[in-house]
Amino acid sequence: MCSNCKAAYTIHAAQHHFGWDNSNAPAETVAPGTVLEFECLDSSAGQLTPESTVADVSTLDFGKINPVNGPIYVDGAEPGDALVVKIHEFKPSGFGWTANIPGFGLLADQFKDPALHIWSYDKDKLGTSAFAPFGKVPLKPFAGTIGVAPAEAGLHSIVPPRRVGGNLDIRDLAAGTTLYLPVEVAGALFSIGDTHAAQGDGEVCGTAIESPMNTVVELDLIKGANLKMPRFETPGPVTRHLDEMGYEVTTGIGSDLFEGAQAAVSNMIDLLCARHGYSAVDAYMLCSVCGDLRISEIVDMPNWVVSFYFPKVVLQ
Amino acid sequence: MCSNCKAAYTIHAAQHHFGWDNSNAPAETVAPGTVLEFECLDSSAGQLTPESTVADVSTLDFGKINPVNGPIYVDGAEPGDALVVKIHEFKPSGFGWTANIPGFGLLADQFKDPALHIWSYDKDKLGTSAFAPFGKVPLKPFAGTIGVAPAEAGLHSIVPPRRVGGNLDIRDLAAGTTLYLPVEVAGALFSIGDTHAAQGDGEVCGTAIESPMNTVVELDLIKGANLKMPRFETPGPVTRHLDEMGYEVTTGIGSDLFEGAQAAVSNMIDLLCARHGYSAVDAYMLCSVCGDLRISEIVDMPNWVVSFYFPKVVLQ
Repeated sequence: MCSNCKAAYTIHAAQHHFGWDNSNAPAETVAPGTVLEFECLDSSAGQLTPESTVADVSTLDFGKINPVNGPIYVDGAEPGDALVVKIHEFKPSGFGWTANIPGFGLLADQFKDPALHIWSYDKDKLGTSAFAPFGKVPLKPFAGTIGVAPAEAGLHSIVPPRRVGGNLDIRDLAAGTTLYLPVEVAGALFSIGDTHAAQGDGEVCGTAIESPMNTVVELDLIKGANLKMPRFETPGPVTRHLDEMGYEVTTGIGSDLFEGAQAAVSNMIDLLCARHGYSAVDAYMLCSVCGDLRISEIVDMPNWVVSFYFPKVVLQ
Repeated sequence: MCSNCKAAYTIHAAQHHFGWDNSNAPAETVAPGTVLEFECLDSSAGQLTPESTVADVSTLDFGKINPVNGPIYVDGAEPGDALVVKIHEFKPSGFGWTANIPGFGLLADQFKDPALHIWSYDKDKLGTSAFAPFGKVPLKPFAGTIGVAPAEAGLHSIVPPRRVGGNLDIRDLAAGTTLYLPVEVAGALFSIGDTHAAQGDGEVCGTAIESPMNTVVELDLIKGANLKMPRFETPGPVTRHLDEMGYEVTTGIGSDLFEGAQAAVSNMIDLLCARHGYSAVDAYMLCSVCGDLRISEIVDMPNWVVSFYFPKVVLQ
């Protein structure tokens, strides 16, 4: 998958932290250009397993949600630099889970009960993973949480992403992509975790195919880049693993993008339930792991169009 | 391009109207299953031509903006039905324009002066169209405005899209796609126009490659579909005309999706100007015709991530 990704350091599963704090002691200090392998836990930190049931969702300890491995101190990194994260490789585990967690997710008001789907997949072939009652979701692993420490002192929640990255949940931060993060503190203090086997743009139910896996990245620097926000570059197409059969698309039209996104996803859930017999919460979770939220137009005042693209190949 | 798209009727360029009004007299009455060809004007109704200059943007008559051909009364259509619009074919003209129109567009506050780019392209091969100072935009024609009359009496502005469609500006309503529109009045009263040779998701500067062209569609009905909003189905991939080289992607992170979209596009304009020497308004117009706004995550409270994808193939 990559030619020069032999890692000089391994950051072990135990070397994780919860939340962002620039006073965290570095797990390792490295020179720019170093490749590291991170043994990432899933976002439940192992609380959910292949044997878990929906009852385990209700008793999750939220103090242990979304661990990230690190932090890594990169020699010479200073505020104003960009940390260059070359994403080399993922080594998936074959196990994953998707949950509806009450109070969390785009349609939290509609879906108030916990739900859980356990996935298993071929970690070597990494093609698709089956969904009951039916469906096959193409896999594309990435790290949901990837970032550096913020300048502001103290402990900051792991949940929201910030200009320094963090819980970005960007589906295309896959192998081969290079991410550029704004550095706010000396050494950057990079951490990574929350690995996903697949997710659609939006992560609409609040979880992806949450899946523990090792990740291999190379860390480098661009001095004085003065980025305002993260940016990234993909080496090729980003949707060809699932676009071959085209899409079913629903829309949400109105003056508020968030409500438009809710309407588009809700309309897709209705379509999937009516046509394929899914329960509403199953359709919601399936949308989260493979459907994409796009802003079709944002200029025809006062109404914007948000579209939700569901890949038909999943239903073949 | 399509096997059975011989039109039974031609709706000529003069058979257009401005705005939506369910009291407009039908241009034609047809049975379900009828194929029609529409001679669509560009969204300036011919006010801008291949010889136009930026001065002509300032003197546009907004009373003549966005004409649509029609309306077509479809026999048997009643409120609660879905009008099925099978989009068969576009016959592009080879001429297009993109403008920054003061007061209009995602970054209207930053771009207050008019700007105009005139495009020419091979209407038969329909590959790419060149952008000065450099760049080549892959073309994919579609109709920006496509809809039926709203139930509410009176004249309604053409600018905003509504649940009955209209100025949807959805880039993927291209040849081969089937669109389903909620019918609100007897006969549906279908109209179409505002044809584009290319556009990115978002249409961020407010205009696409605005280009007059004939369109061929088939109109059919699904009785009692009770759609809440428009939906559509694509027969295959939607981005393979431009995704081959991958993407440069910028982000906008925060608690407001609209501001996130503004930040993501603004960050891309900065990148294109710094790296490729575009003027800011040229970069803005180029983003509008080929870059895509996606919602990467909308669940990690309280901050959402909007990403702007710019296809690298344009810069080759």
